[in-house]
Amino acid sequence: MVDGRLEAFSDGVFAVAITLLSIDLVVAGPGHGTTLAHQLREAWPNFAAFLVSFFVVGIIWVNHHSLFKNFAKVDRTLLFLNLLLLLFVVTIPFVTSTLAKYLTDNSRSASLAAVLYSGVSLAMSVSFALLFNWSVRDPSRLRNPVPSEQLKRIRFRFVGVGTSVYVVALIVGIFSAPVCLAVNALIAAYYCFEQTPPLTRTMPGPDVVPEE
Amino acid sequence: MVDGRLEAFSDGVFAVAITLLSIDLVVAGPGHGTTLAHQLREAWPNFAAFLVSFFVVGIIWVNHHSLFKNFAKVDRTLLFLNLLLLLFVVTIPFVTSTLAKYLTDNSRSASLAAVLYSGVSLAMSVSFALLFNWSVRDPSRLRNPVPSEQLKRIRFRFVGVGTSVYVVALIVGIFSAPVCLAVNALIAAYYCFEQTPPLTRTMPGPDVVPEE
Amino acid sequence: MVDGRLEAFSDGVFAVAITLLSIDLVVAGPGHGTTLAHQLREAWPNFAAFLVSFFVVGIIWVNHHSLFKNFAKVDRTLLFLNLLLLLFVVTIPFVTSTLAKYLTDNSRSASLAAVLYSGVSLAMSVSFALLFNWSVRDPSRLRNPVPSEQLKRIRFRFVGVGTSVYVVALIVGIFSAPVCLAVNALIAAYYCFEQTPPLTRTMPGPDVVPEE
Amino acid sequence: MVDGRLEAFSDGVFAVAITLLSIDLVVAGPGHGTTLAHQLREAWPNFAAFLVSFFVVGIIWVNHHSLFKNFAKVDRTLLFLNLLLLLFVVTIPFVTSTLAKYLTDNSRSASLAAVLYSGVSLAMSVSFALLFNWSVRDPSRLRNPVPSEQLKRIRFRFVGVGTSVYVVALIVGIFSAPVCLAVNALIAAYYCFEQTPPLTRTMPGPDVVPEE
Repeated sequence: MVDGRLEAFSDGVFAVAITLLSIDLVVAGPGHGTTLAHQLREAWPNFAAFLVSFFVVGIIWVNHHSLFKNFAKVDRTLLFLNLLLLLFVVTIPFVTSTLAKYLTDNSRSASLAAVLYSGVSLAMSVSFALLFNWSVRDPSRLRNPVPSEQLKRIRFRFVGVGTSVYVVALIVGIFSAPVCLAVNALIAAYYCFEQTPPLTRTMPGPDVVPEE
Repeated sequence: MVDGRLEAFSDGVFAVAITLLSIDLVVAGPGHGTTLAHQLREAWPNFAAFLVSFFVVGIIWVNHHSLFKNFAKVDRTLLFLNLLLLLFVVTIPFVTSTLAKYLTDNSRSASLAAVLYSGVSLAMSVSFALLFNWSVRDPSRLRNPVPSEQLKRIRFRFVGVGTSVYVVALIVGIFSAPVCLAVNALIAAYYCFEQTPPLTRTMPGPDVVPEE
Repeated sequence: MVDGRLEAFSDGVFAVAITLLSIDLVVAGPGHGTTLAHQLREAWPNFAAFLVSFFVVGIIWVNHHSLFKNFAKVDRTLLFLNLLLLLFVVTIPFVTSTLAKYLTDNSRSASLAAVLYSGVSLAMSVSFALLFNWSVRDPSRLRNPVPSEQLKRIRFRFVGVGTSVYVVALIVGIFSAPVCLAVNALIAAYYCFEQTPPLTRTMPGPDVVPEE
Repeated sequence: MVDGRLEAFSDGVFAVAITLLSIDLVVAGPGHGTTLAHQLREAWPNFAAFLVSFFVVGIIWVNHHSLFKNFAKVDRTLLFLNLLLLLFVVTIPFVTSTLAKYLTDNSRSASLAAVLYSGVSLAMSVSFALLFNWSVRDPSRLRNPVPSEQLKRIRFRFVGVGTSVYVVALIVGIFSAPVCLAVNALIAAYYCFEQTPPLTRTMPGPDVVPEE
C-alpha cells in the first residue's frame, strides 16, 4: 500500500457506488392492485442490470487493488488519472438505472441506453489502461518492475482484450439492449472465473503485476 | 489485517448498507391530516425491520472482522467469495424495505417478502460459510491454524447452526411474515449475547478463530 | 489504533450518516410559482436542523476518536457497545428530517419530533458513556490507565454533564421544538469551543483520555 | 499519515459526497412521451454541474491529501477546522443540484443559485486556507517545516489565488449562472493541469508542502 489515503478514498467511492446500485431495487407496497410476485417479475431488468453492474464495479475494484499493490510512488498525474477512473465508477449507478428502464423498450432509446452503459464501462476500462500504462512506463514507479515480455502479455490481456470487449459490447448495444447487457455479463463472468489460472501460472502472487 | 484494502472496501460496503437502512424511515410532514404519533405507530413494521436488519448486518460485520483477522494471505478466490458475500449485504436494504411494506399484509405477497428476506440472510450466511471453509481447507491460509477438534465445533456452531436457523426462518416466512421477522430478531439476539461465553471459554482471544 | 477495522467501519458509518444529512436539503426547480429565495427562507428549519445535526455527529466522532485512541484491546462486548452507538448515529438523519418538518408546526407532533430528536441524541450519549465505563473498569483495557482522581472529573464532565444536558434538551422539547433545537445547538457549540481548555490544562495530549 | 482515523473519516465524507453527486442524474423511463436522447439533451445542466462538482470535490481531496501528509500532530483545533471544511464538502451535492435546476432559468433565482454554489466553493477554499495557516503557524506542527520564502509563494498561490478566483466566480454568478459554472470549470481545470509543474520544479515531492 503505497499511499493509504489514495486507496481509502478510492475504496470509499467504489463501496458507495456499488451499494447505491441497490437503491434502484424498489417495489410498491400492497394496495397498488398488484402482487409482489408480479412486481418482481416485471422488475427483472432492474435485477439483471443490478447484478451485472455489481460485478462490473467489483471486478474493476479487484483490478484496481491488484495494480495499486505494486505501485512504488504516487504523483499528481496518478492522482488525476485515478480521479478520471472514479468519475466513471460514480456514473455506473446512473447508466445502470437508465439501461434497466429501457431494457425491454426495443426502441432507439433502448439502443442509446445500452450504448451509454457500454460507453461508461469502456471509459472505465480505458482509464484503467491509462493508469496501467502510466505505471509501467517508468520502472521506478513499480515495486517489482514487470519483465518486458510478461508486460506485453499482460498489456495484451488487460488493455487490449479488456478494451476491445467493451467496444464489442457497445456495438452490440446499437442493435439490442438485452443482448448488450448479456455481453457485459459474459465479460464480467470471464474476468471472475477465467482470469485467475493464467496469471497464477506465471506469477508468484495472485495479482496482475507480480511481487516477489 | 492481511490486506488493508480488502477490508477497507468491505467495511465501506457494510457501512453504506447499514446506514442506507435508515433511508426507509420517513414520515410525512404536517398538513397531511395525521399526527406524527399516528404515523410512527403505523410505521412500526419499518422500525422493526430496520432494527433487525441493522443487527443482522452488524453481526455479519463482527464475524467478517473475526474471520479476516486470522487470514494469512489473500488470493483471487477469496476476493470473489468476499464479493459474493457483499452482493447479499448490498441487497439487505431492498429486502428489508420490501418486508416492511408487506409485513402486516397477511397475503401471499407477505409470505414472498418474508421468504425473500430470509433467503438473502441465508445466502449471506452461506457465503460466509464458503469463506470460512475456503480459509480452513489449507492451513497456510491462516495465521494460527485451528486444531481439527476445535474446527469441528466451530464449523458446527457457525456453518451448521448459522445456516440451519436461517433455513428455519425461511420456512416460517411461508406461513407468517411477522413471525419470520421475529425469528430473525431472535437469531440476531442469539449471536449478540449467547455466542461470546462459549468462545471465550475455549479460546485465548475473543474471536471466532483463535490467535496466539 | 487498537483495531483498524473497528475504527474503519465506525468511520464509514459516521461519514455516510453525516453526508446523508444533506439529502434533505432540496429545492423545487423553476416553474413551481415561487422564487429560490422564497424557498430557501421557507426551508430554514431544514438548514438549521442540518447544521445542528452535522455538529452533533461530528462531535460524537471527535469523542469516539479520542476514546478509541487509548484502547488497548477489543472484545465482543466492545464491538456490540459500539454497534449500539452506531445504531443511534444511523438514526440521526431520520430524526433530523422529522424535526425539520415539524419544527414550526407548534403542535403536539412538534413536541414529539423534538423529544424524538433529543431522545436519539441522549441515547447516543448514553451509549458513549457505556463505552467509556466499559473501558475504564478494567485497567488492562487502556494503554494509559487514567488516574482515579482524574477519572472522576472526566466522568463528571463527560458522562454526567453530557447525559444531563440531553435530558434537559428532551424536557425542553416537550414545550418548544425550536427552543429544543437551539439547546442542542448550544450543547454542540459548548463541546466545540469549551471542552478543549480544561482538558489541555490537565493532560499532556489534546484528548479526552490522556496518553503519555 | 499522522492520524489514520481523521483521514479515514474525511476520506469517507469526500467519497460519499462525490458519489452522491450522481444521484441527481436520473431520467424518466419509456412511456413519458419523450425519447431518452431528448431527455439527456434537456438534462445537460445536470451533467455539466455534476462534472464540475466532481472535479471541485476531487481537487479539494487531492489538496487535503497533500496538506495532511505533512502534518506532525493533530489537536482539537485541527479536528474542528477539518469538520468545518467537511461541512461545505457535504453541502456541495445540494448546491450542485440547485444550480443545475436554475442554470438556464435566466432569473434572479438563477443568480442566487450561482452565488450559492460559488459561495460554498469559496467557503470550502477559505476553510482549507484556515487549515493551511493553522498548520504553518507553529513549525512543530509539520514534519518538514516549509522555508518561509517558499511558504510565501505557496500561500500566495493557494490561499491568495485559490480564494480570489472563487470570489470572482461568485461575482460572475450575480450576472450569469452558466458563465459562473464555466468559471468554476476553468478553476478546476487550472488546478488539475497547471498546478503540478511549478510545484514539482521547486520541491522534491509532488506535494503542496515538501517532504524530504
